[in-house]
Amino acid sequence: MKLEHIGIAVANISEAKSLLQIIFGVLPYKTEAVESEGVITHFYHAGGVKIELLEATDPSSPIARFIEKRGQGIHHLAFSVDDAKEDFQRLTNLGLQTLGEGPKQGADGKHIFFVHPKDTQGILMEFCSKSD
Amino acid sequence: MKLEHIGIAVANISEAKSLLQIIFGVLPYKTEAVESEGVITHFYHAGGVKIELLEATDPSSPIARFIEKRGQGIHHLAFSVDDAKEDFQRLTNLGLQTLGEGPKQGADGKHIFFVHPKDTQGILMEFCSKSD
Repeated sequence: MKLEHIGIAVANISEAKSLLQIIFGVLPYKTEAVESEGVITHFYHAGGVKIELLEATDPSSPIARFIEKRGQGIHHLAFSVDDAKEDFQRLTNLGLQTLGEGPKQGADGKHIFFVHPKDTQGILMEFCSKSD
Repeated sequence: MKLEHIGIAVANISEAKSLLQIIFGVLPYKTEAVESEGVITHFYHAGGVKIELLEATDPSSPIARFIEKRGQGIHHLAFSVDDAKEDFQRLTNLGLQTLGEGPKQGADGKHIFFVHPKDTQGILMEFCSKSD
């Protein structure tokens, strides 16, 4: 089990960035817009894992809907796997509710898919592998 | 900024353990009861960080109240610092709402304190350092 990153939904990414700068003295090593998900992201190194701040750019995006429903906070935990396609199939076969028809292109050049939190003790889990 | 562990509040730690075993084929490397917090914990290695499952043993414990209010899910992010006492003072001086009068003894033999999520974009942050 290898945690790759933690996705945090924030209403205002500039404020979140300032907070991390004040507390830890750090700045993002990368920012990226993922148009297909309607978000802008800031990536931080946090020891062995990354922290990904997510702000919605589109009111109908999953991050906007998450904040509307639950408020700001941790949105997902992402785990590295060798082959997202293979694990998508394996977890679907185990009866877990995987989202979508298969892995898709995510931020940071990865193939990703999610498992619905109802099957994972309330945690939205992402599984990601490097693109082919 | 170094993430030390992620604390996850679960209603049934045996079910959560089974889930991690099914998905990742892993077992906890340590279990510990922290009576002062009214919880039992399971610790997992997850690459560069640890995952800590928390089940309440007392209905008035912070974990029981969290689950009652928000449901199961991620309870806190814990960051390693050199000296929890020093950072408690520094963050309090910065105007962040630190909880308690100072660091206290937590699981895993550490000195810990928390900052209220209202000041940290909805995330309960723990700061921990090794005991003296």
